[in-house]
Amino acid sequence: MPDGVGVVETKRAVVFEGDRPLTLASGATLPEVEVAYETYGELNADRSNAVFICHALSGDAHAAGLHEGDDPSRPGWWDNIVGPGRPLDTDRFFVISANVLGGCKGSTGPSSTDPSTGKPYGLRFPLVQVRDLVEVHRALLRELGIETLLAAVGGSLGGMQALQWAIDHPTEVGGAAIIAASARLSAQNIAFSAVAREAIMRDPDFAGGDYYGNDRRPDPGLALARMIGHITYLSEESMREKFGRRIQDAEVPRYGFDVDFQVESYLHYQGQSFVERFDANTYLYMGRTMDYFDPFEDPVRVQNQISQGETSFLVISFDSDWRFSTEHARVMASELRGAGAPVTFQEISSPHGHDSFLFADPPEYHRTVAGFLDRLAGQRGIGARA
Amino acid sequence: MPDGVGVVETKRAVVFEGDRPLTLASGATLPEVEVAYETYGELNADRSNAVFICHALSGDAHAAGLHEGDDPSRPGWWDNIVGPGRPLDTDRFFVISANVLGGCKGSTGPSSTDPSTGKPYGLRFPLVQVRDLVEVHRALLRELGIETLLAAVGGSLGGMQALQWAIDHPTEVGGAAIIAASARLSAQNIAFSAVAREAIMRDPDFAGGDYYGNDRRPDPGLALARMIGHITYLSEESMREKFGRRIQDAEVPRYGFDVDFQVESYLHYQGQSFVERFDANTYLYMGRTMDYFDPFEDPVRVQNQISQGETSFLVISFDSDWRFSTEHARVMASELRGAGAPVTFQEISSPHGHDSFLFADPPEYHRTVAGFLDRLAGQRGIGARA
Repeated sequence: MPDGVGVVETKRAVVFEGDRPLTLASGATLPEVEVAYETYGELNADRSNAVFICHALSGDAHAAGLHEGDDPSRPGWWDNIVGPGRPLDTDRFFVISANVLGGCKGSTGPSSTDPSTGKPYGLRFPLVQVRDLVEVHRALLRELGIETLLAAVGGSLGGMQALQWAIDHPTEVGGAAIIAASARLSAQNIAFSAVAREAIMRDPDFAGGDYYGNDRRPDPGLALARMIGHITYLSEESMREKFGRRIQDAEVPRYGFDVDFQVESYLHYQGQSFVERFDANTYLYMGRTMDYFDPFEDPVRVQNQISQGETSFLVISFDSDWRFSTEHARVMASELRGAGAPVTFQEISSPHGHDSFLFADPPEYHRTVAGFLDRLAGQRGIGARA
Repeated sequence: MPDGVGVVETKRAVVFEGDRPLTLASGATLPEVEVAYETYGELNADRSNAVFICHALSGDAHAAGLHEGDDPSRPGWWDNIVGPGRPLDTDRFFVISANVLGGCKGSTGPSSTDPSTGKPYGLRFPLVQVRDLVEVHRALLRELGIETLLAAVGGSLGGMQALQWAIDHPTEVGGAAIIAASARLSAQNIAFSAVAREAIMRDPDFAGGDYYGNDRRPDPGLALARMIGHITYLSEESMREKFGRRIQDAEVPRYGFDVDFQVESYLHYQGQSFVERFDANTYLYMGRTMDYFDPFEDPVRVQNQISQGETSFLVISFDSDWRFSTEHARVMASELRGAGAPVTFQEISSPHGHDSFLFADPPEYHRTVAGFLDRLAGQRGIGARA
C-alpha cells in the first residue's frame, strides 16, 4: 500500500452567522454554526472532483493522515480508504471530511457556547435531523466554492447523510455510496438506542445535560452506553473468535464480579477510552437523530426529487452486520429503485459485523467502492487511476 | 383448556442448618439455607412421579395457580404448562417448584440475614454455581421424602440446572428437559451480562451491595439492566410486529429525548415493574452464575457420570431465540450424545425469541414436552393421561 495523505490539519469555517442563521428542519434556528473539516488532495479546475466523507456516530473530521506529532500508527479513522491510490484516491479526488452539526469535535453542538446565554447549550441545543447535518455540509461546500459533489460516501450514520443528501439535492450529488446503513431504524435498533440514552441520562452527574465545567461528568453513563453500542458493532462470530470464553491475564476464572473474561475487559477498555474523547450530549443527539431518520416517509416526494437528478447509488451491506443487517440495505435499495434511481446493491461477506465499513478487508469491499467512484469519474472525464 | 391448579401457597423449608451447613462447589459454606417452594398434584405411593421445575434468572417458586386473593388473570409464571391435563400434568405428576439458592423470593440469597453479622449478606454472599443450586434442590427433595425425579424441567437458567442435575446425579433423574438454554455462554452472551452488571454496580445507590434498609436502592441501575436483558429476550421480528416504529399515544413523533416510540415505552415499563419485584444483588449473582457455567469443561467426567444413569434428555431450542440460539442447543445435544446419553433434540419455530419457553404457542412446543414426560411416565408405569 502506498503512503497515505501525510500530515494534515483540521480547519474551521463559520458557515452560518449574523443575518444568515441556520433554520433547522424543525423550524428552530441556530444563530451561528461553525464546522471543523479536513481536505485531502486537490480540487480540479472545473471543481468536479469533490468527494465528501460523512462520518458515523462517533466519528470526526480527521478521516485520514496524521496530525503534526501523531503516532504514525494511529492515522485518521478512515485512513485505509483515503489516499493516493486508495479508493478515495487523493491523486484524483478532492476529499472533504467534516464533523457533523451536533458533534463534539469542532463543529457546533451541545457543548458549544450558546451566544444568547454565554453558556454551553447542553440540552437546549435543538434536536437535529439528518437533513440538517446535510445542510451544514452544503454550507461548507459553498465556503469552499464547490457546487456539486462527484460523490458523498459514508458508513452507518454517514450513509444516512449520503442518502438524505442525494434525496434532498439530487442535482448536486453524482453518486451516493451508502455503506452499512439503514433508511429506517428497526424497533430493536431503537431499543438499543433507548438503553444507551438511559445509561447517560440516569447518570447522576449528567445534571440535565449541564455538566460542562462541573467537577464530574457523566462518564460512567457514557462508558456504559458505548459498551452497549459496541456489542452491536461486532458480530457474534467475531466476538467468539476474538475473545471466546478466555479469561483476561489468567488461565482459570477468578470467580467474582470484577472483570474476568477477556470480552469484559475489552468492553471496559472501549468504554473508558471513549469518555476521554467524546461528549455525552453529542452521543444523545446523534442517537436520537438516527432514531427519527425516515427519508422515505413520503415516497412521492422522494420520487419527485430523485427524478430531478442523475444520482447513482451504491448500497453496501455486510453479511455479519446485525445492527443494520442486509435486510435494511435491501429495503433501502428497493425503495430507491421504486423511486426510479439507478442502484447497485451489494452484500459483502465479512466477519467484522457493523464495524466492517471501517476495515480494509475483505478486498471486495474497497474494490467495490473504488469501482463505483471510477465509473463516476470516467463519466465526468476525471483522469483514470495512475 | 381445563382449569389450572387453583389456589396454592408458597411453603418454606430449612434444608441446611446447624451441624449440616451447605458447602458450596467453591469450598465456601453457608451455615443456613432456607428454600421457598410450591407443589402441585400428589406424590404417588412409590414416590416415582415427581417433576421438578427449575426457574430462570428472574423466576420464583410460584410457577402455577393463584395465591389467595390474586387476580385470576395473573397466575404463576409457568401456569400454561402446569395443571390438570397440561404437559406437567398434575393429575399424574407431583410437581415441585423452588426458588433458587441466591434468589430473592424466599430462598436464601444476598438479601438474607448473615447469621454471623445479623445483617444482610450483600456481596458477602458467596458466588454460587449451577451445581450449588442443584444441591439445594436435592436437599429440598430429601425434606419431602423424595429420592428420584421423574424429570427435571427448565428454560434458560432453569435448563442449565436440569442439565447439571442430570450430569451430577444421573441415577436420580429420569429425564431432563432443557429448553432455550446453553451449556456455555458465548462471548456475546457474557458481554450482555457484563453491561447489565455494570448498570447495577455503577448505580451510586448500589453502595457496594449494602443498600438494604437505605432510603435509596439501585433501582435505576437494575431497571436499566432489565431493559438491556429484555432486548435479548425478544426476537427482532417480534419487536417489529409488536412495536415497529409506532409512536406511543400519538400519531406523530414528539421529537425529543423523552419516551416517544412504543418500544421505548415498553422497555421502560419492563424496567420499572421489575425493580418492584426483584433484588439487584440476586440479578448480579444469577448473571455471574450463568457466565461461569461450563458443565462440559471436563468431558471425561461427564461421560463417567452419564454412564452411571439412564437419564433421557430432551433439548429444545426456538428458531427466533438469539440469546441462546439453536447453535447453543445443537452443541449441547452433541456433547451429551458424545458422553453416551440418549438425546432428543428439537428446534421449534416460534416468533417469541428467547421468551418462547414461557409461551403456550406454537402447540408443537408443549406437545413435545408432554410427549417426553408421557414416555418417561409410561416406562415407570405411571398412569396415562386421563
